[in-house]
Amino acid sequence: MQGVTLTDIETDEDVAARTGATVYVCITCRRPGDPEDAPRPGLALARATAEAAEGTGVAVCQVECLANCSRSLSAAMRCDGAWTYVFGGLEPERDAESLIEGAQLLARAEDGLLPWRGRPEVLKRGLIARVPPLDFAKEDFKEETE
Amino acid sequence: MQGVTLTDIETDEDVAARTGATVYVCITCRRPGDPEDAPRPGLALARATAEAAEGTGVAVCQVECLANCSRSLSAAMRCDGAWTYVFGGLEPERDAESLIEGAQLLARAEDGLLPWRGRPEVLKRGLIARVPPLDFAKEDFKEETE
Repeated sequence: MQGVTLTDIETDEDVAARTGATVYVCITCRRPGDPEDAPRPGLALARATAEAAEGTGVAVCQVECLANCSRSLSAAMRCDGAWTYVFGGLEPERDAESLIEGAQLLARAEDGLLPWRGRPEVLKRGLIARVPPLDFAKEDFKEETE
Repeated sequence: MQGVTLTDIETDEDVAARTGATVYVCITCRRPGDPEDAPRPGLALARATAEAAEGTGVAVCQVECLANCSRSLSAAMRCDGAWTYVFGGLEPERDAESLIEGAQLLARAEDGLLPWRGRPEVLKRGLIARVPPLDFAKEDFKEETE
């Protein structure tokens, strides 16, 4: 770190903003058996995630369906130059912070892959799918499963 | 169609190329119980899809893992301005043409959503997840399920 001053170091907020780190939360997700007009737990998760995102530089978008209904609640995350990840099995009262933490990890990932080490537990067991970044051609990485 | 000549009409190939229509096929996908060193059916699907793509303007990329291993074989598709879709339960001898047909439909979709009507059957029942386009902010669409 020789010669590096504090002002040279990008904060998490700077990195998230620079890479366009975004979490998409499905607000139509509901529990099996919930009546159609019950308050949607997906919406509660979206609101909690937006709150957790304050001051982090991570954007939170509400989405009407991520088509992962059978394994809801659902959210996705992306950053420029990184893979896009979809997660399921989320809980509104529990997982907002983990989503933001994951987006920050992804924004910092130099290889564009969400690291397994240090990844919040729910983003390990709740992984549904991942999609390569736009500039992807052919790669050599695999989802690491310790 | 008054005043429209043949040269005004974009071919499927033009549209696919203009929108950067791309199919990503997971080449590490294998059947449960297959030995580690058996030929990967995912690779066979990738090759068949590349063949089916010839002359269509759709790009086909091999990917090492889409993290949809429990519901393989897996593929994803994207176009500029459109949602990205992930599919599972694919078969190498059966589904290459459907993937290309789906990518062409997506490239033509003015709302950026893969239409349900006319969508190849395997892209209906094999839908795993979808993720909004880059310029997405807040939308009003839902996955249509007839």
